[in-house]
Amino acid sequence: MILIKAIVRPEKSDEVMAGLLEAGYPAVTKVPVFGRGKQRGLKVGEVHYDELPKEMLLIVVQDSDKDFVIKTVVEKARTGAGHFGDGKIFVMPVEEVHTISSGIKEA
Amino acid sequence: MILIKAIVRPEKSDEVMAGLLEAGYPAVTKVPVFGRGKQRGLKVGEVHYDELPKEMLLIVVQDSDKDFVIKTVVEKARTGAGHFGDGKIFVMPVEEVHTISSGIKEA
Amino acid sequence: MILIKAIVRPEKSDEVMAGLLEAGYPAVTKVPVFGRGKQRGLKVGEVHYDELPKEMLLIVVQDSDKDFVIKTVVEKARTGAGHFGDGKIFVMPVEEVHTISSGIKEA
Repeated sequence: MILIKAIVRPEKSDEVMAGLLEAGYPAVTKVPVFGRGKQRGLKVGEVHYDELPKEMLLIVVQDSDKDFVIKTVVEKARTGAGHFGDGKIFVMPVEEVHTISSGIKEA
Repeated sequence: MILIKAIVRPEKSDEVMAGLLEAGYPAVTKVPVFGRGKQRGLKVGEVHYDELPKEMLLIVVQDSDKDFVIKTVVEKARTGAGHFGDGKIFVMPVEEVHTISSGIKEA
Repeated sequence: MILIKAIVRPEKSDEVMAGLLEAGYPAVTKVPVFGRGKQRGLKVGEVHYDELPKEMLLIVVQDSDKDFVIKTVVEKARTGAGHFGDGKIFVMPVEEVHTISSGIKEA
């Protein structure tokens, strides 16, 4: 299995969560984080914001579901035609998944 | 080495932390998160809670300690005979571990 | 690519972030966490603190940048000659990186 770690705008988080549910991937862990991207923050008038609040979404799925889940997240997390700060998706290997309630190892 | 990433009920977190300490695994990183599982939230009377607070515990151990640590977490994190929402454990590969104080690479 | 996951003292976090920016690695995700290390907390007078606040910094870079980034984090995160509680760095494999704004897969 794989972990899809998506870092998205907080204002897009609900839309991504809804999109994943609708697409058949209800199980998501959400972590509030702060991000600094390649654009090194945001300038609003005279004020420079070095780090911006983001939501990190963790989704563990079968390898075969990877491309579909990434496509879903990209579509829901993107603003308009796409802007800096829309976020990143990282794919990482998962060797085992255990369900605590049953004690069963799923993968 | 491996990373054991356990997502548990917040009310079980202290018990899991105590169990890990007692079992000889004091080093744990704890992250407050929100989770939505396969059960898609929780319904209490008329109110539906889409996402529930969870604790994510990160434990990096030798591969040979994997099964024992997972067993410890499952035993301490499980409620009664096991219920939906008790959580998940993911095992992920770790290529290197560095200790900042000494600058030593351990693995 | 790889994920460098650094757990550092909160009071050193800004210094590490500035060091990474200066070294040419602006993109960092920062997560407030709680940590318990091998020293099992901290005793101040009569009071024992079991878990201490830390910052977890997530930096995804090319494999070839690994040693330089780790060196930068260690230098900035270390206190004096190095003390327990300065933190740990974990290196984990990343299989793919996607940029949400462009939809482009980078690695």
